[in-house]
Amino acid sequence: RINSARLWDSLMDMAKIGPGIAGGNNRQTLTDDDAEGRALFQTWCEAAGMSMGVDTMGNMFATREGTDPDALPVYMGSHLDTQPTGGKYDGVLGVLGALEAVRTMNDLGIKTKHPIVVVNWTNEEGTRFAPAMLASGVFAGKHTQDWAYDRVDAKGLKFGDELKRIGWVGDEEVGARKMHALFELHIEQGPILEAEGRDIGVVTHGQGLRWIECAVTGKESHTGSTPMPMRKNAGRGLALITELVHEIAMKHQPNSVGAIGHIDVYPNSRNIIPGKVVFTIDFRSHLQDVIDAMLEEFYARAPALCADIEVSLETEVVGQFDPPAFDEACVAAVRGAAEKLGYFHMDIVSGAGHDACWINDVAPTAMIMCPCVDGLSHNEAEDISPEWAAAGADVLLHAVLETAEV
Amino acid sequence: RINSARLWDSLMDMAKIGPGIAGGNNRQTLTDDDAEGRALFQTWCEAAGMSMGVDTMGNMFATREGTDPDALPVYMGSHLDTQPTGGKYDGVLGVLGALEAVRTMNDLGIKTKHPIVVVNWTNEEGTRFAPAMLASGVFAGKHTQDWAYDRVDAKGLKFGDELKRIGWVGDEEVGARKMHALFELHIEQGPILEAEGRDIGVVTHGQGLRWIECAVTGKESHTGSTPMPMRKNAGRGLALITELVHEIAMKHQPNSVGAIGHIDVYPNSRNIIPGKVVFTIDFRSHLQDVIDAMLEEFYARAPALCADIEVSLETEVVGQFDPPAFDEACVAAVRGAAEKLGYFHMDIVSGAGHDACWINDVAPTAMIMCPCVDGLSHNEAEDISPEWAAAGADVLLHAVLETAEV
Ligand SMILES: NC(=O)NCCC(=O)O
Ligand SMILES: NC(=O)NCCC(=O)O
Repeated sequence: RINSARLWDSLMDMAKIGPGIAGGNNRQTLTDDDAEGRALFQTWCEAAGMSMGVDTMGNMFATREGTDPDALPVYMGSHLDTQPTGGKYDGVLGVLGALEAVRTMNDLGIKTKHPIVVVNWTNEEGTRFAPAMLASGVFAGKHTQDWAYDRVDAKGLKFGDELKRIGWVGDEEVGARKMHALFELHIEQGPILEAEGRDIGVVTHGQGLRWIECAVTGKESHTGSTPMPMRKNAGRGLALITELVHEIAMKHQPNSVGAIGHIDVYPNSRNIIPGKVVFTIDFRSHLQDVIDAMLEEFYARAPALCADIEVSLETEVVGQFDPPAFDEACVAAVRGAAEKLGYFHMDIVSGAGHDACWINDVAPTAMIMCPCVDGLSHNEAEDISPEWAAAGADVLLHAVLETAEV
Repeated sequence: RINSARLWDSLMDMAKIGPGIAGGNNRQTLTDDDAEGRALFQTWCEAAGMSMGVDTMGNMFATREGTDPDALPVYMGSHLDTQPTGGKYDGVLGVLGALEAVRTMNDLGIKTKHPIVVVNWTNEEGTRFAPAMLASGVFAGKHTQDWAYDRVDAKGLKFGDELKRIGWVGDEEVGARKMHALFELHIEQGPILEAEGRDIGVVTHGQGLRWIECAVTGKESHTGSTPMPMRKNAGRGLALITELVHEIAMKHQPNSVGAIGHIDVYPNSRNIIPGKVVFTIDFRSHLQDVIDAMLEEFYARAPALCADIEVSLETEVVGQFDPPAFDEACVAAVRGAAEKLGYFHMDIVSGAGHDACWINDVAPTAMIMCPCVDGLSHNEAEDISPEWAAAGADVLLHAVLETAEV
């Protein structure tokens, strides 16, 4: 079993870097705080006897040697970046749980045939630079590095420039590493495990996702002196599409979700009818045919809704992945570990995207989930108990030991 | 008749200060550009033989002496500040048209019994610091100066501090000046005069307004892993209220308008369901009972719409004025001038708020409107013809000469 107190202390120490305004964290990718978090993680890895490699996307790989020089490493980890108003555990638990697993192996003098690598993926959250899971996506060959470097944040700063600025452009070629397997521990970010009273979720599948960026264009004009029949109010386009997205997502319950999280209004003045509104729809399901059906209905209905109120609609897909099915042997290793350790577990589908969803395409992969209070995540009030964290890290340790061959 | 070419040149010269990005202007109140526009206006006034007084709200008053030392001055003017994406004529025509009227009196050696004052009111637009018509409102006793000084912009800067920073805190007490009458020339900012083929609108009434700032609070959570039934999506509150406002305004056609121009979404991340949305509704009518009916329906229905989707609603009135009826003698002077000069005119209601609406409560007041292309205003593409500008300034000159007694 891992050292629960040590894991919790590390989680709390990391949370001191980039504190939020309401008890959570704002440690967005490629900020100075991200750099500070990375440095602390590196210090901890080196203290645990691991050596750090960094690739040209800033992904960090800390290696614990195995006994067979020819064996491919078993990877475990997640991400240290957070949402602007994020929690202390989303991603962080997966990285520090993996570190704790290595520390425990050290304590117990456990040797494995395969090397073990603890990984921190760059820009999982995708808030500052869309899309999410950007660096694991480049690793898995989903995007080119040049394209990733050109992603811009709201201030117009480029991903590549910011990575350089914080000093974390490594020398390894992205995706050159081969993996025997990868395991990612993550909080559920949903309410199911807690509601079912389970310690562990054995993640068999993930949701697929489509992010559709919409630009509704009307005509900027005076809120007072423009007669109602002459208005082309882009804000009404947003309103109608907000409700359309909700209606479409409600049709495929419980297998679908849909909402709009990001909205920019132009020129955003109290006495100007919005001339343009840009916003991103997030549609998800773990069933590909549900994703397809939602998109089909959206594209069939949204343009007409906009045309009816005399505004125009342009759309662009700015993020997408199909629902992944995780590797059967890796999933069995997770289930077996939970079983052996006596944790109450259930099979579950991941509601969020994770780096493991991309890596699943290039290596045998599985995920472990632990509950979070009220299913709340992407919120500074995100919370878990030390016992939940320990159970997740225990299962991670044992699934990895099984796969890395003691 | 005024010098149409000279008026147009001055309009174009002023438009060089604080240019927009699409041919219009971004000369928002109390910015460095506003200071530069004020300085140019002062230079022009002094060149026309007027002396400048400035009050503690930054309102500028350029005086041309009259023949009777005891006679109260006749005022004319408007505002030089613009929207962030504003036009070259909204407000500016009223100030520079008044300056042109004085220049014409000088050319023709006309003397008046009453002194003539050309005025530039501070922060008419209300975009940077709500509410609109802030400084004329303090002048008319609608707000205290302390309250006005405490208004903050989106960056948290205070009106009082910014007025000081740009160096335009004058030494006159606000509202101490007494007026014989005030005339404001303004572009219509609506489509009626152009559609009816009229040169001049004789403004008999103005619209009243209510700005209701709404804060809808839901719960920030993950767009992927939060099941639909658990969501408290503040963005849906915005959507439902957007459509409610539209529906309510449509009930009282053609005597009402309503829309939402300003929207801030928190935390505004693609994969976070909005936890909070803050926005401002703008309801207007020239009939007080229509304003009352719109507000009554809004307050009766909006909270229930929000409660139905499990978000909460808080509202605050952040701007309000009742529909003004302008002074009969001043209105008659405007109508008489248009008649005498042979301009095709009609009585009209102002769709926008204007400084004249506040001053109407403390002095005999009237407004003159000229058409603008497609009724478009609060848009960089706002446009008028030199002939329309000249007609407006001509009518202003003659109405003022009539009132100031040649
Ligand atoms: N786990 C997580 O929140 N990832 C960010 C990408 C997503 O929105 O699913
Ligand atoms: N004329 C004008 O646009 N004034 C600003 C105040 C308002 O929104 O009516």
